This record gives sequence, structure tokens and C-alpha cells, in this order.
Amino acid sequence: MAELKTARTTVRRKADRGRYDRETVDAILDAALIAHVGFAIDGVPSVIPMAYVRIDDAIYFHGAVANHALRTLANGSEACVTVTLLDALVLSRSAFHHSMNYRSVVCFGRGEKVEDDAAKLAAVEALVEQIVPGRREGTRGPSPSELRQTLVVRFPLTEASAKVRTGPPIEDPEDLDLPYWGGEIPLTIVRGDPIPDEYVRHGNGTHP
Amino acid sequence: MAELKTARTTVRRKADRGRYDRETVDAILDAALIAHVGFAIDGVPSVIPMAYVRIDDAIYFHGAVANHALRTLANGSEACVTVTLLDALVLSRSAFHHSMNYRSVVCFGRGEKVEDDAAKLAAVEALVEQIVPGRREGTRGPSPSELRQTLVVRFPLTEASAKVRTGPPIEDPEDLDLPYWGGEIPLTIVRGDPIPDEYVRHGNGTHP
Repeated sequence: MAELKTARTTVRRKADRGRYDRETVDAILDAALIAHVGFAIDGVPSVIPMAYVRIDDAIYFHGAVANHALRTLANGSEACVTVTLLDALVLSRSAFHHSMNYRSVVCFGRGEKVEDDAAKLAAVEALVEQIVPGRREGTRGPSPSELRQTLVVRFPLTEASAKVRTGPPIEDPEDLDLPYWGGEIPLTIVRGDPIPDEYVRHGNGTHP
Repeated sequence: MAELKTARTTVRRKADRGRYDRETVDAILDAALIAHVGFAIDGVPSVIPMAYVRIDDAIYFHGAVANHALRTLANGSEACVTVTLLDALVLSRSAFHHSMNYRSVVCFGRGEKVEDDAAKLAAVEALVEQIVPGRREGTRGPSPSELRQTLVVRFPLTEASAKVRTGPPIEDPEDLDLPYWGGEIPLTIVRGDPIPDEYVRHGNGTHP
């Protein structure tokens, strides 16, 4: 396993929150669905949200061949892939110590286009499974034409760091007698009841 | 009101999903808590998650004076601020047409350090209010020393675009008789029951 910690992935601010083990990094990447991918084109930064899935030691992105950000990634441009999960609002007795609990991962590197059809298929299937586990068996797989229309990019997990904040607010001792509340308000992403489309409502298809 | 649409904020891929009105942009910015901020330093992109709040025609960030990303933003470096809300998983009868419903905003520009104490205070209070409406009255405001330790950056909303996908999957007509489900699974961020810290449990402070 490669060493994920390099000069530019070393957490500087609140260094005690930095983590560099693959277990922590992988767990965060596997719990989220959207990454924010940054490029620097002619010195101008751009940040685009993209769906992804991790397989082993790489992150896979996919989309239409015409997708500009995906093509930039496929071309091997230097990129930064950041994933953030917001876990709680942290309410302190002082405005100053309000905070948030979060888990984030920042990865640096260069993507590469996946050419092999079997590897492309594996990435597309993993993406579908990431959305709903077991869904691969509940949908039609890509045709050769659809696979040709799909650009799949592999972004290696070689240089990365995680940053994690957990727990209650940090309070100044002199604030503890103030008549204010301190603690955490957990945030959770909840999946609601499935909304069938009009074809399901008219008898086409089964339950998800 | 400035025209938010410029060459680099024009949505190219799925152009019909692009929106350039302030009402749409503001509604998305006001519904989220975390932005992903991109920089290009010596050609290397980096993307950092940051809490923010919108006030009128600007986004405000705050943090410690020692925060490197925030200082980069305060120094007027070219930046890209992206905010994404994930609204639903979109399940199609084909792997190819799986998608997600989302609302995102991408802003380009340069930040500037807020020097005026009243403006800094207003931004800090708005951030606290953004976390929990009414919270400004339920916490101790920043002291002059805390305000000095806080770097507040204003990022003007002059060049931005929103991109929005809503609705059911797009299906190929020949897939409609397949025995698979199609529709949306809504995703919602839910605030859980507040977790009081140990001081509240020992009698210090009130309900949030």
C-alpha cells in the first residue's frame, strides 16, 4: 500500500485531525456519493461535482464522452478530488466556538481514461451498486454502444489525506456558567420512500 | 443586479439545466452549509470544504487567521466556489440512464478580507444564524479579541451559474417493458435529536 501522506496532503491547520491510513480514507470515500473535483486550467481553478465510486486503490468517474470536466480528468490534467461528509452542527456557548463535525478526504493526482471494456463495465456496475446495493441485478446492463458512449476515468488513490472532527464543542471555562446550550445536532442523509415513475404507475416494472 | 452568466459560467454539458438568475442561485446557496473552494497555486489545483453564509450579493467565509486556505482566499487569489445539494437518486431500467437529481452553484471570482469590525461581526452572526435560526440570541457574541482572531473573507457573487436536475429517469422506449423499477429515491438531510454536552448534562445551560 502506497504512503498517502505527502507534503501537500499533510494537514496543516488542526493537524491532530489529519489521518493518512487507507482504512479511514476508504471508509469516507465509500460513505459518500459526490466528489468535488478541482482543476487548474491556465491558472483558473474550477470545481465540479461528480458522482464516483471507489474500487480498491482508485476512484472511478464516468459520464458522457462530451463531458468537459470528465475529459479534462481523462486527459491526465493535475486534479484534486475532495469528498466531504457533514455529520453534526456543533453548538457552543460562544459564537466563536461554533463548529461542525465532518469527515473529509482530499486526494491529489492525475486521472487516466479506462480503455478496457471489462474494466469500464466493472466501474459502471460498481457505480450502480453504490447508488443502491443489489441494483446491478435490477437493471439492464450497458450495451456495447452505451459503453462506447461512456467515458470512464480512473483516479489513483496514491496521495491523499482525511480530516475528521468529532465530539462536543470546545468551551472556554469562563463560558460554562452562561445560560446557553452546548452540544451537537447530528445530521444524517435519509433516503425517503421511492417515487415510482409514470411507467411503473401504469404497470411497467416492479418494486425497486 | 450584475449579470451572472459569463463565458466560463455558461453550462455547456446539458445546457438546458443551466440557470443564471439570482433567485435560483441564492436559494441553493442558502440551503447548504458547506462550499467546496478551489484554488490553483503554481498550477496545482486544491479543493477545500469550507462553511459559509450568503449575505446579499456575497458569500462570507470565516476561520482562524492561521487557516491557509482562508488566507489564500483573503489574498485575492482567483477561486472557484461550488455548492452542491443532492436531492435524489434516479433509478432507471438501464444502468446507462441511472442519474442523480441535484442543485449546484459554481461561482468564480476573488475574495477580499473584511476589515471593518461591524461587517465582520455581521458575518459571524449570520453564520451562527445559518447553523440554527435564532441561535444568535442563544450564544455569547465574539469578544474584541475573538474578532481579531477571526479572518472573515467576502467573495462577491458576480460570476455564477446554477445547474439543476429534477424529475424521473429518462428511459429508452424499448426498455419500458423490462421487469425493472424506475423512479426516484429522495435524499434529505435530517437534523437528529440534539446531543447535550457533559456540562449541560451536569446542569450548565439550557435547551438549544
